[in-house]
Amino acid sequence: MAPRKLQIAAAGLGRMGHRHALNFLNRTPRAELVAAFSPDPKEHEWAREHLELFGQGLDALVIGTASSVHAEEAIKAMQKNLHVLCEKPLSTSVEVCRQVVEEAKKRPHLKVMCGFSRRFDDSYETAFSKVDQGQIGRPIILRSQTCDKHDPSGFFVEYAAWSGGVFVDMSVHDIDLTLWFFGNQIQPKSISAHGYVDNAVGIVEFWGGQIAYYYCTRMMAHGQEDVTEVIGTEGKLSVNLIPQSNLVRQYSEKGITQEVPAHYHGRFEMAFVKEANEFPAACLDDTPLAMPIENAVKAVQIGSWLQEALVTGKQIHFDQSGKRLEKSNL
Amino acid sequence: MAPRKLQIAAAGLGRMGHRHALNFLNRTPRAELVAAFSPDPKEHEWAREHLELFGQGLDALVIGTASSVHAEEAIKAMQKNLHVLCEKPLSTSVEVCRQVVEEAKKRPHLKVMCGFSRRFDDSYETAFSKVDQGQIGRPIILRSQTCDKHDPSGFFVEYAAWSGGVFVDMSVHDIDLTLWFFGNQIQPKSISAHGYVDNAVGIVEFWGGQIAYYYCTRMMAHGQEDVTEVIGTEGKLSVNLIPQSNLVRQYSEKGITQEVPAHYHGRFEMAFVKEANEFPAACLDDTPLAMPIENAVKAVQIGSWLQEALVTGKQIHFDQSGKRLEKSNL
Amino acid sequence: MAPRKLQIAAAGLGRMGHRHALNFLNRTPRAELVAAFSPDPKEHEWAREHLELFGQGLDALVIGTASSVHAEEAIKAMQKNLHVLCEKPLSTSVEVCRQVVEEAKKRPHLKVMCGFSRRFDDSYETAFSKVDQGQIGRPIILRSQTCDKHDPSGFFVEYAAWSGGVFVDMSVHDIDLTLWFFGNQIQPKSISAHGYVDNAVGIVEFWGGQIAYYYCTRMMAHGQEDVTEVIGTEGKLSVNLIPQSNLVRQYSEKGITQEVPAHYHGRFEMAFVKEANEFPAACLDDTPLAMPIENAVKAVQIGSWLQEALVTGKQIHFDQSGKRLEKSNL
Amino acid sequence: MAPRKLQIAAAGLGRMGHRHALNFLNRTPRAELVAAFSPDPKEHEWAREHLELFGQGLDALVIGTASSVHAEEAIKAMQKNLHVLCEKPLSTSVEVCRQVVEEAKKRPHLKVMCGFSRRFDDSYETAFSKVDQGQIGRPIILRSQTCDKHDPSGFFVEYAAWSGGVFVDMSVHDIDLTLWFFGNQIQPKSISAHGYVDNAVGIVEFWGGQIAYYYCTRMMAHGQEDVTEVIGTEGKLSVNLIPQSNLVRQYSEKGITQEVPAHYHGRFEMAFVKEANEFPAACLDDTPLAMPIENAVKAVQIGSWLQEALVTGKQIHFDQSGKRLEKSNL
Repeated sequence: MAPRKLQIAAAGLGRMGHRHALNFLNRTPRAELVAAFSPDPKEHEWAREHLELFGQGLDALVIGTASSVHAEEAIKAMQKNLHVLCEKPLSTSVEVCRQVVEEAKKRPHLKVMCGFSRRFDDSYETAFSKVDQGQIGRPIILRSQTCDKHDPSGFFVEYAAWSGGVFVDMSVHDIDLTLWFFGNQIQPKSISAHGYVDNAVGIVEFWGGQIAYYYCTRMMAHGQEDVTEVIGTEGKLSVNLIPQSNLVRQYSEKGITQEVPAHYHGRFEMAFVKEANEFPAACLDDTPLAMPIENAVKAVQIGSWLQEALVTGKQIHFDQSGKRLEKSNL
Repeated sequence: MAPRKLQIAAAGLGRMGHRHALNFLNRTPRAELVAAFSPDPKEHEWAREHLELFGQGLDALVIGTASSVHAEEAIKAMQKNLHVLCEKPLSTSVEVCRQVVEEAKKRPHLKVMCGFSRRFDDSYETAFSKVDQGQIGRPIILRSQTCDKHDPSGFFVEYAAWSGGVFVDMSVHDIDLTLWFFGNQIQPKSISAHGYVDNAVGIVEFWGGQIAYYYCTRMMAHGQEDVTEVIGTEGKLSVNLIPQSNLVRQYSEKGITQEVPAHYHGRFEMAFVKEANEFPAACLDDTPLAMPIENAVKAVQIGSWLQEALVTGKQIHFDQSGKRLEKSNL
Repeated sequence: MAPRKLQIAAAGLGRMGHRHALNFLNRTPRAELVAAFSPDPKEHEWAREHLELFGQGLDALVIGTASSVHAEEAIKAMQKNLHVLCEKPLSTSVEVCRQVVEEAKKRPHLKVMCGFSRRFDDSYETAFSKVDQGQIGRPIILRSQTCDKHDPSGFFVEYAAWSGGVFVDMSVHDIDLTLWFFGNQIQPKSISAHGYVDNAVGIVEFWGGQIAYYYCTRMMAHGQEDVTEVIGTEGKLSVNLIPQSNLVRQYSEKGITQEVPAHYHGRFEMAFVKEANEFPAACLDDTPLAMPIENAVKAVQIGSWLQEALVTGKQIHFDQSGKRLEKSNL
Repeated sequence: MAPRKLQIAAAGLGRMGHRHALNFLNRTPRAELVAAFSPDPKEHEWAREHLELFGQGLDALVIGTASSVHAEEAIKAMQKNLHVLCEKPLSTSVEVCRQVVEEAKKRPHLKVMCGFSRRFDDSYETAFSKVDQGQIGRPIILRSQTCDKHDPSGFFVEYAAWSGGVFVDMSVHDIDLTLWFFGNQIQPKSISAHGYVDNAVGIVEFWGGQIAYYYCTRMMAHGQEDVTEVIGTEGKLSVNLIPQSNLVRQYSEKGITQEVPAHYHGRFEMAFVKEANEFPAACLDDTPLAMPIENAVKAVQIGSWLQEALVTGKQIHFDQSGKRLEKSNL
């Protein structure tokens, strides 16, 4: 008898959603995409063309809708006893993120995962494994940037208005990497940020002495450039320091050129495929997920503080217990 | 109604065969692996574990057995009206290669493809497209090497004895790239080679002035290093000049290090997946294959001449019609 | 008749001083090193061995002593009518820096230069020229780091105590690059910094929207890693993103490795030589120096503010006229 | 008293000669350029402008004239008791090279060096030192290329006619590297070559099993690309695999670009300076030169055989004693 496959439905078929749907349709031997929902008539049309929808006997839901409805859909899915793979962020509101976690805690038999896709990228996995084996000593400094190719349509500038801001929308990936490489338990000590709506630099210093600093922008002329460096007491690792579309170099009078992926998909395609395979495996085999769902809240929380520091022009401080210090306490 | 999928069987489950079988099982939305055959009892066991065999209604056969039986299996499959995807080479004998082509010509409704996987690699496809668009002018020099990590077991040294020699077994990939980048119609003018059973350099000069030169070895300490450079009158392209396992760089007292794939699979995994998807598409849609099957014969022919030049220590010459010139004609 | 050479003396023969002295002795066709002074008896000995001291007819002084005496020596030299090339910083005190500038303004016939060696580095010159030609549009973001190989002797940790702190001692180079690439006239709007005595990250946001951010450390396991990136509205430039000692790559079971210079000298040797040649040229031909001496004060000023932000844990703000805003004004 | 400097004169002030003269004028603390000779009136003019000629008490001669007069000038200089640094090749005729060596053997107190500048390049020195320390095991394969940027003036195509051919004129550098890395004592076993007047590939197989293969051209669109790879039983080294003008990378819509030196001077400037410093040191201190002068003959000899193989289209064979085998012996 053929092994059982996870029966999964897709909510949302837009920018991110349709990629998740296609992955579960075509590239996940242990999962079967059985339905797809979308509020958008154009997306319905796309779905009719690309997806075979037989519905029924659903086990899980992958959520790739607009960020503003992630949490509500995740909670409803859990209430219908479905495993949930939710595109990041759970919500741009820390409070709402926490509600998702509350719901998940009530149903420990369900797998609830927020899709921090970089955790499934071969290069980041290799880097983490080296840190984990102590190859760079104790990690102390993390520099990470999420830089998108300039989109002349202006879509993303508008987008920033309701996405929680660049630190919540973009740097949340870098913050998640920080929690991964420094450990989930680290506590911020102080936070600063400078910049503008879609071009900003921020620093988070942690109790314990580690420092993470982030750059995010949507103005890169050359393409997607998501770089991470981790410096330890005995060595350093970089991931994607020189981005590349492929292994071709072109030599001309101008010099030697390597092309750069235009979008996150060119950089992270296989990470999304791996995520789409590891989630059904965890559901079917009841094995632990790559990261606890609480992590997703902590990442949004730190992103929100960076955003606040950016907007107010003030450094934020915390005591060692995680309590925020007001100006008068400083 | 779900679209029809190509029903395919796998012959051979060894080093190459099991990878083809797994790709058709898990990574080809338009093909269904329905059977697997192997003469080896251990491979039968592997198949029971990994494959679901339901047999029946077969459309196609993927051949990943030992090179010595490729041709016989390919011919039998065509005689049973099956499309054929055959791992390279069709045969180590040019004569036997021709018999496969003869059989294929009798059955033009069948798709018969020899698996030169590099044709499906993103980087080679990008490079070819640039050449095709004239970005480097007229291509004149091609340097290509197939270099395997040293295998201390000695397997491959023995293997060379019955694989047709390194130029037929290994460089055949580089020769196929030459036919791709210079055009199938090019005719060798003279051929030289120097070296040993598993460490050799060869040169093919073509009528028209192009030169291809090849290096192949199985003694690399660091890993797989398959590099190609194409120099044209107005520019140059390189593919995989600095091999890399992933996008991580490790910094230590020794310097900055990038790891290298240990095997062809680390370098060409996605090319094999693409090949396994394009073959069913060509069969189901009756569209042309990436390359004519005659090409596979020409590649083996040139490989055999290089091997002869290596063994005899003599340069081989041809006239412009492709006729070989004997010493007395020179 | 042989062309006249600049007669120059060297003050200080320590870590930096002896390199300046050797350059003026051996690698400057238009200058002649005629004397060397040092308070340290061991340095006297070194000088007797390496330098030919004939004294007399002095035109200029190169100052490579401890930072704490730079300013005093520079002022005395000007008072003796000597051109001055002073190792950076003029002083760790902004006030004292200003006194040097005052003295220089009184004697406009003298060339007074603070040795920001990166201005003479081929790679930085190329990068600046591209920015200057508008090749990356308007420069907006500058990331720059000065990272030394870990010195197990602990010398530099002690050194930090009296060197003005890491932002004044190390990042001053990155700040000078900022003034070069963004223009001398830019005014800071706000400044933050986080970290420790020898491991710190800082951000300077400018009126006009540009942001510079800096990392400096003395704990690199692998060597010297001084990297700069400049992002503009239409492109980006990086300098030394992957440091390298030379053009050798070593392939082993570990992967492919490039070695890294252990010290600033391995990275900037030729920049110091160029500086040592351009200074005499400017003196002899009475041509303008690479940068106005006022710049050196501004760089130390910004470094001091970063250091203050680091120590106090508070963001510093300025109005558009350059006036510092107190908390009550925010 | 100032240490004695080597009094050196320069013969030839053309393409190569004027660079040697300038180096000895400005960048060699232990040598003094005291005279310069040239048959060309325009070069005389250049010399009057750039050089201070005082003549007298000559110790040495640097020869940078046309290849055709190198040998005669070298012999005359030795007869006048001068040390000689001669630009490569000593002669394009093996016989004439041998006359220079004969003359040098008669006068063992003189230093006679043929300027294989790559021997003084930091990267090649580092690579050799690693090979010498056994870091790649026993070196077996050497690939080396000398590739010039296309010169649209056509000068070099004409030049090839009287320069001995590309293998003697260009690949002689790669052959010299082969003798360095494999050892001066290696004996060719067989030689092949294919190609045209300024675009050729050659292979030299040695008794002992080592293989060297060379590519040389003057048609590179992008610039100078002199690459060497040495493969050993336990590792590999590459030198200048990705050529670069400097440490700048430029990011644009096209991708990430590194510029390439247009000429040998951009790649080897510092090697020429080092050569110009090590030669006087050997003369003044009577220390051994970097390589025996016999080497320069052997390199030209192998280049001539490659050139012969190229022109005749026939492989050349040798027995283990170095005796050439005729067809009838094969």
